[in-house]
Amino acid sequence: MANPGDTAGLTRLIENGAVVPGEIVAVIGKTEGNGGANDFTRGLATLSFSLLLAKYLGLAPDEVTRKIAFVWSGGTEGVLSPHATVFTRGADDAAPDGRSKRLTLGIAVTRDLAPEEVGTMAEVRLVAEAVLSAQAEAGITDPRDVHYVQVKGPLLTPAAVADADSRGARLVTRDPNGSKPYARGATALGVALALGEATESALHDGMIAQAMDVYSSVANTSAGGELKNCEILLFGNSIQASGDLRIGHAVLQDVVDAGAVTRAAQSALGDTDAALDISQLVALFAKAEAPPGGMLRGRRTTMLSDADIHYERHARASLGAVLASVTGDSAIFISGGTEHQCKPGEAPIAAILRV
Amino acid sequence: MANPGDTAGLTRLIENGAVVPGEIVAVIGKTEGNGGANDFTRGLATLSFSLLLAKYLGLAPDEVTRKIAFVWSGGTEGVLSPHATVFTRGADDAAPDGRSKRLTLGIAVTRDLAPEEVGTMAEVRLVAEAVLSAQAEAGITDPRDVHYVQVKGPLLTPAAVADADSRGARLVTRDPNGSKPYARGATALGVALALGEATESALHDGMIAQAMDVYSSVANTSAGGELKNCEILLFGNSIQASGDLRIGHAVLQDVVDAGAVTRAAQSALGDTDAALDISQLVALFAKAEAPPGGMLRGRRTTMLSDADIHYERHARASLGAVLASVTGDSAIFISGGTEHQCKPGEAPIAAILRV
Amino acid sequence: MANPGDTAGLTRLIENGAVVPGEIVAVIGKTEGNGGANDFTRGLATLSFSLLLAKYLGLAPDEVTRKIAFVWSGGTEGVLSPHATVFTRGADDAAPDGRSKRLTLGIAVTRDLAPEEVGTMAEVRLVAEAVLSAQAEAGITDPRDVHYVQVKGPLLTPAAVADADSRGARLVTRDPNGSKPYARGATALGVALALGEATESALHDGMIAQAMDVYSSVANTSAGGELKNCEILLFGNSIQASGDLRIGHAVLQDVVDAGAVTRAAQSALGDTDAALDISQLVALFAKAEAPPGGMLRGRRTTMLSDADIHYERHARASLGAVLASVTGDSAIFISGGTEHQCKPGEAPIAAILRV
Amino acid sequence: MANPGDTAGLTRLIENGAVVPGEIVAVIGKTEGNGGANDFTRGLATLSFSLLLAKYLGLAPDEVTRKIAFVWSGGTEGVLSPHATVFTRGADDAAPDGRSKRLTLGIAVTRDLAPEEVGTMAEVRLVAEAVLSAQAEAGITDPRDVHYVQVKGPLLTPAAVADADSRGARLVTRDPNGSKPYARGATALGVALALGEATESALHDGMIAQAMDVYSSVANTSAGGELKNCEILLFGNSIQASGDLRIGHAVLQDVVDAGAVTRAAQSALGDTDAALDISQLVALFAKAEAPPGGMLRGRRTTMLSDADIHYERHARASLGAVLASVTGDSAIFISGGTEHQCKPGEAPIAAILRV
Repeated sequence: MANPGDTAGLTRLIENGAVVPGEIVAVIGKTEGNGGANDFTRGLATLSFSLLLAKYLGLAPDEVTRKIAFVWSGGTEGVLSPHATVFTRGADDAAPDGRSKRLTLGIAVTRDLAPEEVGTMAEVRLVAEAVLSAQAEAGITDPRDVHYVQVKGPLLTPAAVADADSRGARLVTRDPNGSKPYARGATALGVALALGEATESALHDGMIAQAMDVYSSVANTSAGGELKNCEILLFGNSIQASGDLRIGHAVLQDVVDAGAVTRAAQSALGDTDAALDISQLVALFAKAEAPPGGMLRGRRTTMLSDADIHYERHARASLGAVLASVTGDSAIFISGGTEHQCKPGEAPIAAILRV
Repeated sequence: MANPGDTAGLTRLIENGAVVPGEIVAVIGKTEGNGGANDFTRGLATLSFSLLLAKYLGLAPDEVTRKIAFVWSGGTEGVLSPHATVFTRGADDAAPDGRSKRLTLGIAVTRDLAPEEVGTMAEVRLVAEAVLSAQAEAGITDPRDVHYVQVKGPLLTPAAVADADSRGARLVTRDPNGSKPYARGATALGVALALGEATESALHDGMIAQAMDVYSSVANTSAGGELKNCEILLFGNSIQASGDLRIGHAVLQDVVDAGAVTRAAQSALGDTDAALDISQLVALFAKAEAPPGGMLRGRRTTMLSDADIHYERHARASLGAVLASVTGDSAIFISGGTEHQCKPGEAPIAAILRV
Repeated sequence: MANPGDTAGLTRLIENGAVVPGEIVAVIGKTEGNGGANDFTRGLATLSFSLLLAKYLGLAPDEVTRKIAFVWSGGTEGVLSPHATVFTRGADDAAPDGRSKRLTLGIAVTRDLAPEEVGTMAEVRLVAEAVLSAQAEAGITDPRDVHYVQVKGPLLTPAAVADADSRGARLVTRDPNGSKPYARGATALGVALALGEATESALHDGMIAQAMDVYSSVANTSAGGELKNCEILLFGNSIQASGDLRIGHAVLQDVVDAGAVTRAAQSALGDTDAALDISQLVALFAKAEAPPGGMLRGRRTTMLSDADIHYERHARASLGAVLASVTGDSAIFISGGTEHQCKPGEAPIAAILRV
Repeated sequence: MANPGDTAGLTRLIENGAVVPGEIVAVIGKTEGNGGANDFTRGLATLSFSLLLAKYLGLAPDEVTRKIAFVWSGGTEGVLSPHATVFTRGADDAAPDGRSKRLTLGIAVTRDLAPEEVGTMAEVRLVAEAVLSAQAEAGITDPRDVHYVQVKGPLLTPAAVADADSRGARLVTRDPNGSKPYARGATALGVALALGEATESALHDGMIAQAMDVYSSVANTSAGGELKNCEILLFGNSIQASGDLRIGHAVLQDVVDAGAVTRAAQSALGDTDAALDISQLVALFAKAEAPPGGMLRGRRTTMLSDADIHYERHARASLGAVLASVTGDSAIFISGGTEHQCKPGEAPIAAILRV
């Protein structure tokens, strides 16, 4: 994408028949904003893509956004390249062979959240419910076949804070940018709860964004000011699915863990000894995180004390370059902030491979 | 270093006898500033280190800075770790064996430059002269034994611009941050001229920071507002040197070229087939650069159009993470801006190994 | 505006009859981006406003942008408030009284510019031609009745640089953010040429963004990556216009010149002794500039050497607060960069008053 | 000051006899850092000033910092000019006349705080105790004669967080930049408690940085990573003091309240009708704050949702320009963050006048 409103690439794919507009179910991409509360590149991308698809689908733009899930993460620091990955579900796919598990996708949304629910157990439960619904839609029965759950939910904008104030409602924080850890943490715990990675008894309001030893290893969550509800995109492998794609995941031990690409690919192939063949790689989705206390393998980094550049931007720049040095391709989906997504300092990475 | 003024590490090395203050000839390090015209972390580091060494050497702090070369590069984006590498020249080293080339270091300075000389042929010639002097001091006769020439020179501060204005002197630019390409480019061309990488006929004022096909492959130059003259630290291998260290260099093809570490190590070992043994690595010195036109291996990056974060910061964050993913150690000297240092998009990297 | 895509305010004005969509000729506003080459808030605002008006006007969105001039300036630093000022030209206005001059507006556009024309005499001449055309449309015969000429033109995006490179075309600079001074300077000189503030003999390629003693006192120019041609909005007072608005202008002596509001109002009223009545003020349009050499009334400021925050952002924050301290209203149009718009350090300010 | 380490101005004043080094008791100034956790310009200024004074006083630099209170606030956004105000207490002053109250200064420090005490009631009580001690030293019996209490205390650096973690100690927050509201709030409440602006029963850990209706109107507090204890500088007028200076204070209603300069001057003169005579103004000390919810006089500002530039920087730029537009002098001490310093959105301003 040449800018956040550039839909020329998708137009070309539609015009040459590679993508059928009516089969598009989700778009996941990176835009070149700052990733913060005042990042409007995500909104511009959604508006532009929905305008384009509205023409093809004969729908109004806002009907497009109800039909297709758009997940944009702002921030293409370092070498990261603005791009969109378009997911389609085709009617004319070959029938599943009944033996091999193939990539599948389930989508669900929660109801709109009130500002005072953001970052609380109310959000955790709503997300958990939606994750189960997405898993069912994806045709996945064993939670171990779920490899990547992308959740996007609301953060607390100044307008949301003002709204809560006017009603005397109590918020987890009044700082728009400071609300992201709570928002991302609560939705990740929702995934953990749904997939059995956490038990309900371990969860309560006070532990959200605090008790970091409770987590999901496949959640990838973000928060944006443009949303009021949570959108869940659940990816896994299912015997009910056909096609030639499989997904796997691994855990980034830290932000310079280049070996995680191979491990995620091995997970997708179901072969822990497979050598990495980058020609098989179709897409990578990862989270970037600062090392705990800023200390990376015994060395002090300055991400966490930098008042000019947010640590998420440092972390995305770092991981993006490391992954691109392995794959040769910098069109990678990396978003920042891993509250309750793997252990502190660790982060999830998912890989889709053509098998 | 816990902050730019932290000398506790060096104090410890001195107190336990690992470093003899009187043998210190140079300090090269990274500080956690923004790397721009208003980065005062370099000055703080120099002041703090010279205060410490003044006590041990019985000198005034400004006498220390005349005796010891301090080169600090601001900007520890991503995982880069603030640190200092201290170079000593010991009287009690074993005698050279007369056969093996070992790490050697030559230092030279130019006279102070007038603001109107910054970024011009005057600076090129002054640096070339000083490089030859440093090469002689290092005991190197073949320029191919020179692997890394660190040059630090002045940029145009607002005060320098005002000074030039008051004398009616014409500057290459009036923009302090915009003067860095000229300043770094001219000093790099000085290295190229001295080492025979460029011929004098190819050099003139108008080609500085413009004709990028003329360059040095071993220069690593920076510009700071705190300097009026240029300091040259020339590193190579010499049969006259003893010790167990050797230096080599390679060219980073781009900012995610992880293989360059191995190639630089092979160059140091004089063995182009040697496998990388990270336990041999003592220090890495590299330059980070944005890809030409922002395009990295066919993908658009957003470094060059970002008005919030300077492209050098994106580039340092990227390369720092890539190199740390190879070596496991993020205390790497990486500075930004490669005008006339390798081809556009490429950048030099030097490695010191214990052999 | 609650965000750059918020059209609720204009929708309300249309729905309650205060604004007739078909009478809208121009929209001038501020959006909350960084004002740099990667500020996409302007594009989002244009897209959102044209989508809204497309519905009311029965046009396609891109037909709206050809019919209505949109001028957005990114950057609401300090207290500046994101907003839009909508200009209408009504068929049912009262007839001019034949004696009083009233606010009038002329609009013109140039053809698309090639990247290599940006910041050159080619751009100067194209703008001058368009200014004369806009002046004629506005019904103004005496250039002294022109008080404010807003010009928005292209800057050099990475894509434009690549395009020029592919054709071997020579650019004024290859730095996207660095192209703004040339782009803004050339369009300002076009205004100066058209209005007789500069003679053609004083103008040539080499003096653009260099010889700052040639300037217009009523030009307010900006440059954005989303444009290929230049749009001119010329405001003045004409005996052919009716209504109860008049416009005037003054020169800000520096970025804290609070008295300029009164002088601009006096200019609008044609009464150099009039006391300021802020209830008469309808809109302010000003340019913000750093003091020459960073020195403001003998004190050093740090705007020009700041590598974290661009000087235009410092300047807009400063002037916005000063003007709001006078008027009590922070919805002011202030854009940065005054190349060839008043003397260095000075800047134009225009005021529309209800008389 | 030409840079944070520039002591040429003070050297000149000492050399020409205007300042006697042995009489210096405090230095309050602005440096051109970012004002955040990684702002090292404050440390550089302290180091440089103490090195200079060490020579004159025959002391070691660290003895100077124990004898003289240094208060630096980082961040000279907009027009603010880096500078230092040097306070002296002369033995040879004329005797007080026994009738007129004149400017007086008391200084006190607390013991070092543990990280887990930062932002808690422990800090509130320690500061309150020190304020009373400073008030006594200043010779002030009526708290209404106290017009300005500058407090600088520690924030939570990554090192402090790690230290607390290693001891299992619980912190008010683990975010270095996020610890500033707590740190500034607790010290301001200490002032309020000491001066009777708040009762002890209204104070408890949970209300710090939360219950903003409890506050001091004369506290001006900041937090920096370089401190472990709190330093209190208390300014007021006392019948025991001589000289020709008086101090007063006012409350800034918001960040564009230009009239507050006059009210602070009137307070200093003890004459609520006095016209402002800027030739009397010796120094201004103010706090800058974002408007509550970002809404300034009914208009939305974008300070609080900006992820690129911290709201304190926006607020300092705004207030600095407004005050400079009144006084013509941009060497003003303005620091950011007003937790428990006046009501939300309001801020204290103190003025020293020559009478």
